[in-house]
Amino acid sequence: MKGLVVLGSTGSIGRQTLDVVRAFPDEFQVVGLAAGRNLDLLASQIEEFRPRMAFCALEEHRGLLPDGAEFVPMEEMVCQSDVDLVMAATIGGAGLVPTVRALEKGKDVALANKEVIIMAGDMVMSLSQAHGGAVLPVDSEPSAIWQCLRGESKAVRRIVITASGGAFRDTPPEELETVTPEQALKHPTWRMGRKITVDSATLMNKGFEVIEARCLFDVTWDKIEVVVHPQSVIHSMVEMADGSMKAQLGPPDMRLPIQYAMFYPQRLPNPQIPTLDTGVGHSLTFQPLEPERYPCFGLALQAGKDGGTYPAVLSAADEVAVELFLEGRIGFTDIQRTIGQVLEDHRPTSIDSLDAVLEADRWARVRAGEVAGQTPGRPGVTSAV
Amino acid sequence: MKGLVVLGSTGSIGRQTLDVVRAFPDEFQVVGLAAGRNLDLLASQIEEFRPRMAFCALEEHRGLLPDGAEFVPMEEMVCQSDVDLVMAATIGGAGLVPTVRALEKGKDVALANKEVIIMAGDMVMSLSQAHGGAVLPVDSEPSAIWQCLRGESKAVRRIVITASGGAFRDTPPEELETVTPEQALKHPTWRMGRKITVDSATLMNKGFEVIEARCLFDVTWDKIEVVVHPQSVIHSMVEMADGSMKAQLGPPDMRLPIQYAMFYPQRLPNPQIPTLDTGVGHSLTFQPLEPERYPCFGLALQAGKDGGTYPAVLSAADEVAVELFLEGRIGFTDIQRTIGQVLEDHRPTSIDSLDAVLEADRWARVRAGEVAGQTPGRPGVTSAV
Repeated sequence: MKGLVVLGSTGSIGRQTLDVVRAFPDEFQVVGLAAGRNLDLLASQIEEFRPRMAFCALEEHRGLLPDGAEFVPMEEMVCQSDVDLVMAATIGGAGLVPTVRALEKGKDVALANKEVIIMAGDMVMSLSQAHGGAVLPVDSEPSAIWQCLRGESKAVRRIVITASGGAFRDTPPEELETVTPEQALKHPTWRMGRKITVDSATLMNKGFEVIEARCLFDVTWDKIEVVVHPQSVIHSMVEMADGSMKAQLGPPDMRLPIQYAMFYPQRLPNPQIPTLDTGVGHSLTFQPLEPERYPCFGLALQAGKDGGTYPAVLSAADEVAVELFLEGRIGFTDIQRTIGQVLEDHRPTSIDSLDAVLEADRWARVRAGEVAGQTPGRPGVTSAV
Repeated sequence: MKGLVVLGSTGSIGRQTLDVVRAFPDEFQVVGLAAGRNLDLLASQIEEFRPRMAFCALEEHRGLLPDGAEFVPMEEMVCQSDVDLVMAATIGGAGLVPTVRALEKGKDVALANKEVIIMAGDMVMSLSQAHGGAVLPVDSEPSAIWQCLRGESKAVRRIVITASGGAFRDTPPEELETVTPEQALKHPTWRMGRKITVDSATLMNKGFEVIEARCLFDVTWDKIEVVVHPQSVIHSMVEMADGSMKAQLGPPDMRLPIQYAMFYPQRLPNPQIPTLDTGVGHSLTFQPLEPERYPCFGLALQAGKDGGTYPAVLSAADEVAVELFLEGRIGFTDIQRTIGQVLEDHRPTSIDSLDAVLEADRWARVRAGEVAGQTPGRPGVTSAV
């Protein structure tokens, strides 16, 4: 049995990871569960899976954890000798330090928390290479690319990442200023956590995926394309050196990429995961991305190409801005304005240590709060995050 | 350099095979070319590629071959020690004996002439296993399946073969009786040889591909599905054990599967092969196959499942019926009627030798001519083939 730690166990990916564990009870021993603020769900997960370690973000929850699970900080939890696989399903910057610590110990990390790669992708990949722990992508698009590359040489000609276009793909741009969090959270095809759903509406998420693909699959920027594919059935495509293209497809369901990362290279049947019904009529459409519709996508690409601490600043500023938007404290178009301003104000350094990343992250969070607070006609938000 | 023999060098696949040789002049030495009746083209191919062996079907052409190429029968040509790869791009039953001889000598065979697999698939695969020569599918659908399976275990859940639906996919069934060869030869997406284009219009070709897939990829009948995909961009799909589906796609161009088989497992860039333009809007549609529209498809599946000499009879009867249709001697719906009657009249045996296959083939050709000759209101055609 594989010793499993789930970071972010009460979130969307965390819960579905535990669904996979339930489907294969003889394959995994849950040795640690870590959550944010959802104490009730964490407690019931601890009762069910009996991990010997647990973590919750809030000080006042610690005494309330069920018996049997010792409180252990995430970055220590992942380093224990009985841990074989870490599912990093935390959100935003929270997964960075535990992921780095796990890779330093040579653990395999299934990485759903893509911001870790955005913040410190090259460092993460170097640690993986140096200590032998694999970085296993869990997100549906990089998982699709990874599956398409299975058995192929890395000499790819092109990676085509599909994008649903998010909640506002058909909204006239002039109406975006006044859209509500409720509207942004209505993703057309995927049911996901709140932050990634807003990141999908701004297409920041797709920008992150381009940065992630460049790093995970070691391709140059010019080899990565994004196309709008509203049905979210083709999860991504890869064009090989000879021009042949492969796609990975299926109904939008995160349990497949989760399970693929957890069992790689094995593929095991799981009747709970729906498969594509080819007996009904399907129409899969593709259309070019209109970059002017999605300024956050452009910001992400530029930050990725500029490198250094820019991507970490991008990710931190996005996390703050999305949170403020979800709290109703800034408007939807303030997200892009805030991130753009923070990037403009940033003085980049190279990333020679984890501290350099964490320092850029801290700076960007403060600066994002300040910039967002300067939104005309809105209350100050400097103390928000 | 690989020593290459091209059987059927003046046909559609043969000519495109030589296009690939032209694109990679340092990779292949053409040691033999074999053609049917197109002496002019064969002669110019001999002038260009300077093979030491050549074959043409007609006795009276033999003395007219250019100097330098010795006349050698196909089944001897493929056995020579300087032959590494045989491209079997003959049509119908013509490729059977040379393919069997090549595999007996342990040569790799790139198999475009799918009727060989229909006639004697199990024998061909056994010879490949016994003597170490690979059977490399060249047709776009099996090539797509093969590419999707690359790096995967053979434990597939489902193979989904796509079908364009052929020239008459939108023709009302009651009009099929009077359609002309010219209409049948207008394939909506692929430019191919005449026989396979008519086989696509009847969907016999798709029935052949189901039989071929079962044999090449060692799956049971119930794991193979056919869906109508009018755009011919997705060439086929495979669903793995965990429910994940992979597809291979690209513009309809046979040079890709040809080249893939010729270089396998390498993938080499060839600027002549078009790639999928994802920057334009695409709509890929799928709809269930209506089996009642395509009686030949049902005949093929039944013959495949019945096994023994039935598939060889199917293939031979189809070859005769399609030829008679192309000559204007029987109608389009007489194709299915003829094949159905010949299958009904057949007394099957098991296939324990090449002779058993050849005997079934001979019987079916004669019987198909007789049956076709009994078409009400049409001249007798017993001496046609």
